Amino acid sequence: MDVAQLGEQELIRRMAEVLSSVANPAVSTDVLVGIGDDAALVQWDSPSALLKSDQQVEGVHFDRSWAEPEDVGWKALAVNLSDIASMGGTPHSALISLAVPTETEVSWVERLCSGLAQAASAYGVEVVGGDTSSSSVIVINVALTGTLSVRGGSRPDPLLRSNGMVGDVVAVTGSFGGAGACLRLLTGAGDKRPTAGLMKALLRPVPRVLEGRVLREEGVRAAIDVSDGLLSDLGRLCGASGLSGVVDAAAVPVHEDVYACFPLGETLEIALTAGEDYELLFTAPAEVVERVASRVETPVSVIGRLVPDPAGEVIVEGRAGAPVEFPSSGWRHF
Amino acid sequence: MDVAQLGEQELIRRMAEVLSSVANPAVSTDVLVGIGDDAALVQWDSPSALLKSDQQVEGVHFDRSWAEPEDVGWKALAVNLSDIASMGGTPHSALISLAVPTETEVSWVERLCSGLAQAASAYGVEVVGGDTSSSSVIVINVALTGTLSVRGGSRPDPLLRSNGMVGDVVAVTGSFGGAGACLRLLTGAGDKRPTAGLMKALLRPVPRVLEGRVLREEGVRAAIDVSDGLLSDLGRLCGASGLSGVVDAAAVPVHEDVYACFPLGETLEIALTAGEDYELLFTAPAEVVERVASRVETPVSVIGRLVPDPAGEVIVEGRAGAPVEFPSSGWRHF
Repeated sequence: MDVAQLGEQELIRRMAEVLSSVANPAVSTDVLVGIGDDAALVQWDSPSALLKSDQQVEGVHFDRSWAEPEDVGWKALAVNLSDIASMGGTPHSALISLAVPTETEVSWVERLCSGLAQAASAYGVEVVGGDTSSSSVIVINVALTGTLSVRGGSRPDPLLRSNGMVGDVVAVTGSFGGAGACLRLLTGAGDKRPTAGLMKALLRPVPRVLEGRVLREEGVRAAIDVSDGLLSDLGRLCGASGLSGVVDAAAVPVHEDVYACFPLGETLEIALTAGEDYELLFTAPAEVVERVASRVETPVSVIGRLVPDPAGEVIVEGRAGAPVEFPSSGWRHF
Repeated sequence: MDVAQLGEQELIRRMAEVLSSVANPAVSTDVLVGIGDDAALVQWDSPSALLKSDQQVEGVHFDRSWAEPEDVGWKALAVNLSDIASMGGTPHSALISLAVPTETEVSWVERLCSGLAQAASAYGVEVVGGDTSSSSVIVINVALTGTLSVRGGSRPDPLLRSNGMVGDVVAVTGSFGGAGACLRLLTGAGDKRPTAGLMKALLRPVPRVLEGRVLREEGVRAAIDVSDGLLSDLGRLCGASGLSGVVDAAAVPVHEDVYACFPLGETLEIALTAGEDYELLFTAPAEVVERVASRVETPVSVIGRLVPDPAGEVIVEGRAGAPVEFPSSGWRHF
């Protein structure tokens, strides 16, 4: 059955059923009005909140030939969770806007909601509302709220792109290039098929929410989530901080399966520029990074340092400090 | 120049420039982090907030042949403002997610943002973030937050669909059918061209934010905004309240220009079912409605009453109380 045959009211009822099946007890008590009225009403411990929205567009961010609806749902929430994580926040509540062609199978939408519900459950988020519409292409927009723990009376101090300092080292969580390598293989580059590890990196990114909170607790002040490519997003942090960055090519943690699918000469470029990693990049004094690394299970790697050049540029140093050049620094949306 | 030639970073910079040109001083002090980082950080007077998202899809909600980009921008925010209004809230901050084809003119996007900025300025909203993507069709999603004034320590009590009571009369703000009549004329029904008044009703709906606040102050407890059609949305309020409704056909305020463009036999159906009105429908004791009417400039009309039938049905009474039937009660999204 397609969504036109089912009708909007029944579609929303079924979506709400799947989404509320994992209602998070901790958040539920803070949802005063959830799905079903004109707007939701939520409350928090403190009178401030993080707000973020991001969308997944069919044919741009995913293709139904290689992404299951559960994957699309997971990722639609995960990319927003990653942004809340990079501010050092705790995710709270979400609104889902879904636009789908009238001939979309109802089961596809239900499975999408199941993926959303998996991510919501894993990260303690409650879906409190949204909107559905017909459209010629599938677009899933998620608006996500989050909270920042505040120590008695002080102003909330999120991790910011603009807080980088001279003397900071540049560090990252996890590994890079897995999602980008997978996308290249799926869209025809190379003659190999993506490994299961690469598919997981592309379809099921793991937002670093716990890690973001630890960063803030340990005194890190500058961070960004890497969605458009490591060099591109480091460049943004540098630009916002009025500094530049130097990356040690040999220190960049490349997803291990990238080596299995691409020649050695391409792996670094993929890791630095291909995007969709959803890891955290942060800067802090070296000893602070060490404290963070000792508290989280996810590997933390120091990959470079900030330098006092206000141009906001990033230099990649290869062997013996020689600069490495790339044709592009990151993902282009247009 | 199109958005692909300009590039995403410069597009976002230009959008932010237009959107921040009308930054609202009252809200700005509450925006701790605005456009430009991974997420926004806002604060409110009280630790609770209304949340709503709604989208405008090209070919479904608007067509570039008859909607100027400023109109699309205005309406994308206005439909969300209407939902905050129907809860009795005060709009606060917004996230804009924009998906557009790569060949879209940059000036179209700038004019869209200008329309968003007009609505933001008129209703004291600040745009604090969002997302851009390419897409085969234009989709503008707005996520809007709002606040509810709370009297010392009490729980926030929004206007709810489920709060209708036996003995309440059914009342509405403004007039109905203007937007729906316009859409019918634009999409080929009838041989007339829409009047300027009908175009304004469709393209520039006026969210009843002040009126929603007055409703709450005067003790109204049940409301809904009429987006899908008067009968359809009254039916939702009735269903949520476990009651039914009776509408007096002669009391329904029809947009005056509808009479100029459609035969008399069709005007009532258009007013009751065509949708896109973005007026408030509320229920309360008659004397409360009178107090509301005396405090707002927008006309307020009593059009019916709630009755103790739990079926959630709506009956329209014509002359001498005879029921009037319609083929459909409202707008179908699929």
